[in-house]
Amino acid sequence: MGTSKNALEPLAIGVDIGGTGTKFGIVDRVGNVLFSGEMSTKKHAQVETFIDELQVHLAELITKAGGQGRIKGIGVGAPNGNYYTGTVEYAPNLPWKGIIPLAKMIQDKTKLPVVLTNDANAAAVGEMMYGAAQGMKDFIMITLGTGVGSGIVANGQLILGHDGFAGELGHTIIIPNGRMHEGTGKKGSLESYASATGVRLTTLEVLKTSKKKSVLRDVPANDIDSKKVFEAAIAGDEVAKEIFEYTGKILGMALANAVMFSSPEAIILFGGLTKAGDLILKPTREHMEENLIKVFQNKVKILVSHLKESDAAILGASALAWDIK
Amino acid sequence: MGTSKNALEPLAIGVDIGGTGTKFGIVDRVGNVLFSGEMSTKKHAQVETFIDELQVHLAELITKAGGQGRIKGIGVGAPNGNYYTGTVEYAPNLPWKGIIPLAKMIQDKTKLPVVLTNDANAAAVGEMMYGAAQGMKDFIMITLGTGVGSGIVANGQLILGHDGFAGELGHTIIIPNGRMHEGTGKKGSLESYASATGVRLTTLEVLKTSKKKSVLRDVPANDIDSKKVFEAAIAGDEVAKEIFEYTGKILGMALANAVMFSSPEAIILFGGLTKAGDLILKPTREHMEENLIKVFQNKVKILVSHLKESDAAILGASALAWDIK
Repeated sequence: MGTSKNALEPLAIGVDIGGTGTKFGIVDRVGNVLFSGEMSTKKHAQVETFIDELQVHLAELITKAGGQGRIKGIGVGAPNGNYYTGTVEYAPNLPWKGIIPLAKMIQDKTKLPVVLTNDANAAAVGEMMYGAAQGMKDFIMITLGTGVGSGIVANGQLILGHDGFAGELGHTIIIPNGRMHEGTGKKGSLESYASATGVRLTTLEVLKTSKKKSVLRDVPANDIDSKKVFEAAIAGDEVAKEIFEYTGKILGMALANAVMFSSPEAIILFGGLTKAGDLILKPTREHMEENLIKVFQNKVKILVSHLKESDAAILGASALAWDIK
Repeated sequence: MGTSKNALEPLAIGVDIGGTGTKFGIVDRVGNVLFSGEMSTKKHAQVETFIDELQVHLAELITKAGGQGRIKGIGVGAPNGNYYTGTVEYAPNLPWKGIIPLAKMIQDKTKLPVVLTNDANAAAVGEMMYGAAQGMKDFIMITLGTGVGSGIVANGQLILGHDGFAGELGHTIIIPNGRMHEGTGKKGSLESYASATGVRLTTLEVLKTSKKKSVLRDVPANDIDSKKVFEAAIAGDEVAKEIFEYTGKILGMALANAVMFSSPEAIILFGGLTKAGDLILKPTREHMEENLIKVFQNKVKILVSHLKESDAAILGASALAWDIK
């Protein structure tokens, strides 16, 4: 296998489009991110200006990497991205509404082949190539960020579904008639609870309904976020610990359902909330096991991605590009 | 392609083991059940005597079909059946407890190659070869009988999971802290509601808590079953109709979650409860759509299996045998 020092070795570009920012980088076969950068997604109300800016950044990196000839293609991870059509469809967290032919637009602009999928699918491919899922044929990737994404691999293949949109575990209903999700209008979905947004909402609810002392009561409601809850929890705040316990309970139930669906060898967690470590992992494991029927118990590993967070999204997206024909 | 009239054409045996009875038959390539029979499962407290009796019946059919030489192999569908190991593990509805090496035991007795999987996976393969799922690469089979089974096909392959036990949608939790499942000890699983057993329990609950008139009040509690509720509903009984509405609501929610997981082209329903037709299908469709996020809405067909019920289980199991190397 080649290394990045070989000037003739092909490289791939990974682009990870998030609701707030977009990360991009040039990656070699073994998963080194050679050059990278980032830009705002949010400030581009129009997808056209977003792509103009992206192209300028990519052109710079491509020049540094030795020119267009070395680039095999571009892999793009984006919320609600569709592998089959190369479109992003009705993504609640992106500034562009409706159906956007993003792969084609980037391809036309950069003159490089582009393949696109949703961000969590890209992360799953990244874990399979470079991360915790190396050698696994059956696993589920769950990204716990502002929202909850998922990528499901079975029989060694990404499950894309008949329309390319499979793997939306974040939107499965865990608590019927539960908390309203503002983006989708649905009630009780996993994402409403087990995301950074969900932890914030749980905190606001708990502070209202419980009478317990908590350092979180000194934080203005607008400033409450999952990071503050985490800091309070590691400082021993009981209310903050309960909030993670509750979040883990719901996540554990959802993971049990996922396990009974596709019976993975492991579930790989990635993203901001995993930083809470055992505060969230312990209740998650416990409640997963509690809800599993016997044949599934004590079999499924819950792992935290060990890819560097700043690189992982780019690696995952770039991994898609290696399969471009 | 040959027909059953060709004496040299290979045949396959399908065996469907249920909690109450076992069906078996000899099937040709195009899905004709040439010879078939059934026997009791329940009366065999020991798996050994079950296999002795099964072997006697199969030997008879094999003679009728022209002898052992024509039989490619035996496909077996059984609850908690494991394709990889050929074992049946901790099946709550079978008389034999623990881990049973069923495929090997049948193979030793019949001297024919045996492949085994869970009954709903077998049904899914049957639908793909002979039924409503012909030509589909992504679908979910749900069997609504005494329990709820499921078989998931993605990218044209059965999802077996890393351990061979994938596809237990019946045990996913739909109502947290809901109705206790006596077989598993878990609360709020799909099977506790959307099965014949579940409909019976819902009926007993509704008759206790509601004050509405119903012909079902004249039926002794021990005699209440899903068939009686169905008959009452088609005769216009409002309580009976509400029971199907409620069952469909829970089933619809579970199907929405399944769709957001693997995004199938269709969900194929099979088994006793589907006889209630639109009484259950209409609320199921409505509540599935209601719980789906936009990208999945109005895309997924809910189909009822059109295989003859008496044949379908045998066909599904036999379909496994064609792939024996």
